[in-house]
Amino acid sequence: MKALEDLVTLLSRLPGIGKKSAYRMAFHILKLDGQFAALLAERITGLKDKVRFCSRCGAYTEEDPCPVCSSPSRDRSVLCVVEQPQDVLTIEASREYHGLYHVLGGLISPLDGVGPDALRLDRLVDRVRELGVREVILATNPTVEGDTTALYVKRMLDATGVRVSRLATGMPVGGDLEYADRLTLVRSFRGRTGL
Amino acid sequence: MKALEDLVTLLSRLPGIGKKSAYRMAFHILKLDGQFAALLAERITGLKDKVRFCSRCGAYTEEDPCPVCSSPSRDRSVLCVVEQPQDVLTIEASREYHGLYHVLGGLISPLDGVGPDALRLDRLVDRVRELGVREVILATNPTVEGDTTALYVKRMLDATGVRVSRLATGMPVGGDLEYADRLTLVRSFRGRTGL
Repeated sequence: MKALEDLVTLLSRLPGIGKKSAYRMAFHILKLDGQFAALLAERITGLKDKVRFCSRCGAYTEEDPCPVCSSPSRDRSVLCVVEQPQDVLTIEASREYHGLYHVLGGLISPLDGVGPDALRLDRLVDRVRELGVREVILATNPTVEGDTTALYVKRMLDATGVRVSRLATGMPVGGDLEYADRLTLVRSFRGRTGL
Repeated sequence: MKALEDLVTLLSRLPGIGKKSAYRMAFHILKLDGQFAALLAERITGLKDKVRFCSRCGAYTEEDPCPVCSSPSRDRSVLCVVEQPQDVLTIEASREYHGLYHVLGGLISPLDGVGPDALRLDRLVDRVRELGVREVILATNPTVEGDTTALYVKRMLDATGVRVSRLATGMPVGGDLEYADRLTLVRSFRGRTGL
């Protein structure tokens, strides 16, 4: 059935969706009434139509500037630098951070041919100065690319005199020493804190 | 973001999709260009628009009668009875069966208040007679409901004198005795075959 195969092909391009899951999803859509399919289709196009990038921080938003950038209750003296727009939502969900964000839109990766020019770095120094930021928290992933990018941003910000910090790396809460990889363990030792 | 939450709510109603997978899918759709979202939306509605039930066997199809029912090369003397339309696709994928199908559209389940009247049983006896079927293979799942339904269909077909068989139950190929449940093991012993 072409209509089924066509949908399954597209669905299985989504992350974490294999052929089997794609078929299960398609069969479920077939089983439910047409209203569900229509609504799902509408919301998929609606997502792309309504969601844009905040012109200030680069996060996903329906209004520009985004709710974080325009909120009077956020701490404008702290700026958290992340790789992707969705990282903002992940951090917001933790309710731990109350400052502003700056989305890079990628990481420096010489192997993939991605240099600093491909990232939203030009506005970062300006924003730090304009907002009177006291601390920049680098929250790129603890990977080779994330660490490289963090180091690059740190050097770029040296001229501003702002304090630059990096998210702690170590054992995840609930983790097991037995299953921790060597590098995580190394970082956990080096970053150990007084008790 | 409302547009994001709305889509995630709907996506996580699909089988096997939790909140986390739904977010990953939504973020992926956001990241790709609008063409992907438009195409995905189009194919979801297209699926419901194009796919209907075969008026003969009850399988999903884009043309009525379905390719299996209208194929001159299928063996019209064997009829395979399945629960759901998608079971036809699963069996077709195995390339083991070359007869026709009859989809019940459900299983008898007294606990859920589903009686024989809710199933596509009325046309079954007629089809067996019209097609001159020699054997009916009952391929409902090896569950309480599947077994109950198989027994009911078997009794209903007694009057026609057709041979009725049931798919074998036992250890799955590649399975491990250690992890087989008791009932599967019991059925494997009872259904053992000469070597």
